[in-house]
Amino acid sequence: MESSKHLTPHFREELEHLKERLLVMAGAAEEQVRTAVRSLVDRDHELARQVLTGDDPINLLHIEIDKRCFQLLALHQPMATDLRVVVSGVKINSDLERVGDFAINIAEATLRYLEHPPVKPLIDIPRMADLAQGMLRDSLDAFVRQDTTLAQEVLDRDDALDLLKDQVFRELLGFMLSDPLVTGPALDLILVSRHLERIGDHATNIAEEAIFIVSGLDVRHHGRDGSAQDDG
Amino acid sequence: MESSKHLTPHFREELEHLKERLLVMAGAAEEQVRTAVRSLVDRDHELARQVLTGDDPINLLHIEIDKRCFQLLALHQPMATDLRVVVSGVKINSDLERVGDFAINIAEATLRYLEHPPVKPLIDIPRMADLAQGMLRDSLDAFVRQDTTLAQEVLDRDDALDLLKDQVFRELLGFMLSDPLVTGPALDLILVSRHLERIGDHATNIAEEAIFIVSGLDVRHHGRDGSAQDDG
Repeated sequence: MESSKHLTPHFREELEHLKERLLVMAGAAEEQVRTAVRSLVDRDHELARQVLTGDDPINLLHIEIDKRCFQLLALHQPMATDLRVVVSGVKINSDLERVGDFAINIAEATLRYLEHPPVKPLIDIPRMADLAQGMLRDSLDAFVRQDTTLAQEVLDRDDALDLLKDQVFRELLGFMLSDPLVTGPALDLILVSRHLERIGDHATNIAEEAIFIVSGLDVRHHGRDGSAQDDG
Repeated sequence: MESSKHLTPHFREELEHLKERLLVMAGAAEEQVRTAVRSLVDRDHELARQVLTGDDPINLLHIEIDKRCFQLLALHQPMATDLRVVVSGVKINSDLERVGDFAINIAEATLRYLEHPPVKPLIDIPRMADLAQGMLRDSLDAFVRQDTTLAQEVLDRDDALDLLKDQVFRELLGFMLSDPLVTGPALDLILVSRHLERIGDHATNIAEEAIFIVSGLDVRHHGRDGSAQDDG
């Protein structure tokens, strides 16, 4: 078995296919999030229920992509950047599956929320959703195109999401204190904002992987490690 | 480069070392969770602050273990079960890092909670913490010892954790409705219970990896896929 086997056209094809499947999965996860938030904003029960039963494609992709990564490692024994892409593929796959789970959590909170009159017009939560979805989309693009500038932009946007989450928390706590009747539904809005913040965290993970693939630099934990990760 | 290189004593040693480091990381993450919950129960600000500044070892282990997995793949090109152990190592490493993050989230909620008088004696939350910590410990043991029976036990315990989370939610919502003054602190207790539930989810992920390593069976998503994952 020659060590340059990973440079064969077949391996390249498989690697491109892996990236395509990750894009498909990201699209599916983003769509679930979009639908979940729309069901909340439009007060549409049916749409929320669609999200609850709509995660089969994501779960199947999760299993399929894991298998792809595994087979790429077993059959081609990639090295250096190629190895980084496949290992990052494993992690990004997990991140996207979690995003799908958060869409479900948002739909669950929505169905509880819709049992009550609206607490307030929703402004910050759709804004958080747009931000988180954009981060997710761009982090995947950064990974596929190996674009570290775009990846860094995703990392920079995470602070805005955190600020909005804190703002939502404070505002809704205020509502709850002045009118205990809104406690339940306001709590659900707080949970939705937390789920959206977590989706942003996963986009951040993906962006960090994109930077790692290109530079070999581990930028997680504020690059405390500092040194480049060498693949031996 | 011979394909049986991964069977050399050196590879075995490195693989054992990887497992040991994952155990160390799991121990560190569990200790952070334990300390965070103790700070809440004992109303100990100092302990909560220790958790906030205590995640350096976990973050360094996160980077170190990722590097180890990467080097095992690059230098030894493991196959079959060995490959599964290393790829699972990558995922478990991410799971444990998230557990460390949740310990921080619990400590943050605790510091807010301690600004107010206690809402109620804490019974279910310490119970949830015990359960989640036990699941985490056992999932790692199941992974290291390749014990699928223990892994399955961990999966079975997740329902109990979910039930407790729902119980905590309902009880605290009741407190908030009857006394708006406890809204803020009760909300923080709800968040703590959600963080503990997520820790249980990560233990579940780890247990599923343990089963996958031994059987090649993907039991995630209720084994909807059904088929064995083959490593080619």
